[in-house]
Amino acid sequence: MMQQKENTVFVGNKPVMNYVLAVVTQFNNGAEQVAIKARGKAISRAVDTAEIALNRFLEGVTKKEIITSTEVIDTEAGKTNVSSIEIILASAK
Amino acid sequence: MMQQKENTVFVGNKPVMNYVLAVVTQFNNGAEQVAIKARGKAISRAVDTAEIALNRFLEGVTKKEIITSTEVIDTEAGKTNVSSIEIILASAK
Repeated sequence: MMQQKENTVFVGNKPVMNYVLAVVTQFNNGAEQVAIKARGKAISRAVDTAEIALNRFLEGVTKKEIITSTEVIDTEAGKTNVSSIEIILASAK
Repeated sequence: MMQQKENTVFVGNKPVMNYVLAVVTQFNNGAEQVAIKARGKAISRAVDTAEIALNRFLEGVTKKEIITSTEVIDTEAGKTNVSSIEIILASAK
């Protein structure tokens, strides 16, 4: 029986190609699904990561779902809200 | 017969509450659906706009769809690709 694999790439402040490479590598290693996650200002880079990976590198992979939410973060100055995004890419194979 | 109204808020570099107010105002004026659109670095602010509007101001409104895409922009330096997002909020009424 096939096992459902889910892998996650957390997008931060590094150059976008680092994250694109991470996503592409996971699919090349047999992942059926990869979740790209980011918070705050990195959300734009997460969208870039998904778009570049899909348009330039991955065949037979599609955007399965995009989820946005609000997370509560504890900081030294107290609790603060930050937006987050999760973009799920899935292989058709 | 009810007319389907679609209104759009383009998110740029102003403070996020400007865009939240624009979205809330459109629903208060009877819009059944509002599209929040942004490109590039403003994508994070578009997600913030949707999250703040839904969590703090709008009742009976939900995220209907989130679409990301790549747009080709003409600049002085030639064509360049930029990611874009469209977050569609819809009233249940």
